[in-house]
Amino acid sequence: MATLREAFMEQLHDIYDGENQIVEALPTMAEAATGQKLKDTLTEHVGQTRGQIKRLERIFSELGQSPSRKSCKGVQGLLDEGREILEKPAGPTRDALLITGAQRVEHYEMAVYGTLRSWAEELELDDAAELLSDTLDEESAADEKLTSIAEGGLLTEGVNEEAASARK
Amino acid sequence: MATLREAFMEQLHDIYDGENQIVEALPTMAEAATGQKLKDTLTEHVGQTRGQIKRLERIFSELGQSPSRKSCKGVQGLLDEGREILEKPAGPTRDALLITGAQRVEHYEMAVYGTLRSWAEELELDDAAELLSDTLDEESAADEKLTSIAEGGLLTEGVNEEAASARK
Repeated sequence: MATLREAFMEQLHDIYDGENQIVEALPTMAEAATGQKLKDTLTEHVGQTRGQIKRLERIFSELGQSPSRKSCKGVQGLLDEGREILEKPAGPTRDALLITGAQRVEHYEMAVYGTLRSWAEELELDDAAELLSDTLDEESAADEKLTSIAEGGLLTEGVNEEAASARK
Repeated sequence: MATLREAFMEQLHDIYDGENQIVEALPTMAEAATGQKLKDTLTEHVGQTRGQIKRLERIFSELGQSPSRKSCKGVQGLLDEGREILEKPAGPTRDALLITGAQRVEHYEMAVYGTLRSWAEELELDDAAELLSDTLDEESAADEKLTSIAEGGLLTEGVNEEAASARK
């Protein structure tokens, strides 16, 4: 492999597997959440991830390829880490851990989609660039929402504060 | 484990292992880079990572703990992915892949240090929060530098452009 186009296709297959791994793991994470807001946000992200998978399938179809799952080791490592959280007792500290676990996945995806969008632009694949951009925006928004659940707002206690005061 | 403080310590040990894995892997990545700017940036980041390890050791020492390496599966997955890049032929496309690989690691660290700083503030560990903040800023700057190497500036061709035109 020597061209950016080939690297682009390879990375698309890679994140296609990653997104599928995420959609399989997220419901268990949502179930493990104690706080309702976190549970809802993780559940909502299952639907969003399905939409992101559909976008990838559109890109494959526009480029005349079938989607196939190249094993995404990056997401696998992050989800292995996430599964360790499930062994902790339920409560605000586990929620704080679930948030950081989910944010690591979001950040991974932001790095991937940022790169893929930039490559798509360089390769003059405008439709793909736009679809990748939509997903990138969704991931950033999901990450910010998780931060606000962790840190709370003016009127609401965040998960971190709850966890910190749990045994004070 | 039920308290945020315990989770904080556990995650510190985790990223301490992660940083050590990174410092071991980075020189090989730098060696594999074709572009001089990328090579220099990755090499410079080895020194920066050593500084980040020292900061973690200061935090451990201030909290009366010895640093130990809890296996960080997240970084491990990212570096496994990075090692696959080394099997590609050298050139601008491999450089573009090395950049995205490095950015995934930076993004992981940004997620981790963002959380740890926020937890440290919640736990009123002000010195730790400040040290974690310094590392977070370094990671963001390193990520931006990699983006500029990939995308180029007004006067310089970026790695992506070089890679895209390599076989045109």
